[in-house]
Amino acid sequence: MSDPLLEELLQALRCLPGVGGRTAQRMALHLLERDRRGGERLADVLGRAVRDIRRCDRCRNFTSADICDICASNRRSDRVLCVVEAPGDVLAIEQATGFEGRYFVLLGRLSPLDGIGPEDIGLDQLERRFAGEPIEEVIVATNSTVEGEATAHYIAGLASRHGVRLTRLAQGVPLGGELEHTDQTTLAHAFASRLPVSE
Amino acid sequence: MSDPLLEELLQALRCLPGVGGRTAQRMALHLLERDRRGGERLADVLGRAVRDIRRCDRCRNFTSADICDICASNRRSDRVLCVVEAPGDVLAIEQATGFEGRYFVLLGRLSPLDGIGPEDIGLDQLERRFAGEPIEEVIVATNSTVEGEATAHYIAGLASRHGVRLTRLAQGVPLGGELEHTDQTTLAHAFASRLPVSE
Repeated sequence: MSDPLLEELLQALRCLPGVGGRTAQRMALHLLERDRRGGERLADVLGRAVRDIRRCDRCRNFTSADICDICASNRRSDRVLCVVEAPGDVLAIEQATGFEGRYFVLLGRLSPLDGIGPEDIGLDQLERRFAGEPIEEVIVATNSTVEGEATAHYIAGLASRHGVRLTRLAQGVPLGGELEHTDQTTLAHAFASRLPVSE
Repeated sequence: MSDPLLEELLQALRCLPGVGGRTAQRMALHLLERDRRGGERLADVLGRAVRDIRRCDRCRNFTSADICDICASNRRSDRVLCVVEAPGDVLAIEQATGFEGRYFVLLGRLSPLDGIGPEDIGLDQLERRFAGEPIEEVIVATNSTVEGEATAHYIAGLASRHGVRLTRLAQGVPLGGELEHTDQTTLAHAFASRLPVSE
């Protein structure tokens, strides 16, 4: 007994992550009752974004141009390249660190069982960059999952073949975290990899 | 250092209730990485919804037609009219009860301080319905707030003038609720309004 267009909107909103029936209803009614201009703007921008945002030709990150802002910038160093799995990782690193090198975004990870091989995540393109650019260090920042580790291992092979120094993010107990609440694997790793304290 | 169109999308998503910076980022990346078709569909439906969804000529509920489905249905009774503040209340009552009468949606509540008078929430239109239709009972289901009560009081005046019987939702402790966690006002009201138990 609800309006068909309103029903369609409730369904369409559920494509958003974490949005179920009740949240979709709250969002739809909020936009219709209180913020039609916001809804109009969202519809317009979202339409343009899913149509125009593509992968950067150089680093595979999301961009609406041919080359993303980071690759196009001449203020960043060509000597350090950070390899991540997803565009969200670039945003996280940009917000948290003062990194001034370039990125390479795999948009996935090696997963032979799912039929995802090196070419599917641009590792051939990465190798060409190792060969043709003055890259001295590659920082592998893939996730600490089985597939992430396998991907890191593959990249290590490419890097050593082209004489590029490889580094990985430090692993251990999180800053500000309590030992009691740290998961066992992390704690065991941090314990085994303990470092000398200089005086 | 982020893409301008992506930035614009992150901003636009924040018009949704309960969506802050991090959620907007998660939503945008989810749509771009995994569900472009869902994003396209949402953009299209949302654009049509904010343009085409208007108020029903009879009950002021949201509809994309002139008259909403509930008003247009000939299976519902014209004798009982339920007055609510918002379209979400209609959905809630439809889902929870077996109500088979019609609705009238105020889309607001009386609030002289904010300059919201009877005409702004369609009470003149409601009075014309009392006068011209075979309404026998009006169920006032406005919220239990100061403005909601004031609105209910005003409607009670209209109803008595036109000889329409007025009822309100029962107030008391919620079913399945624990006394210990019931707010004081509700508990005091329920205690004072205690009912005899028939054997």
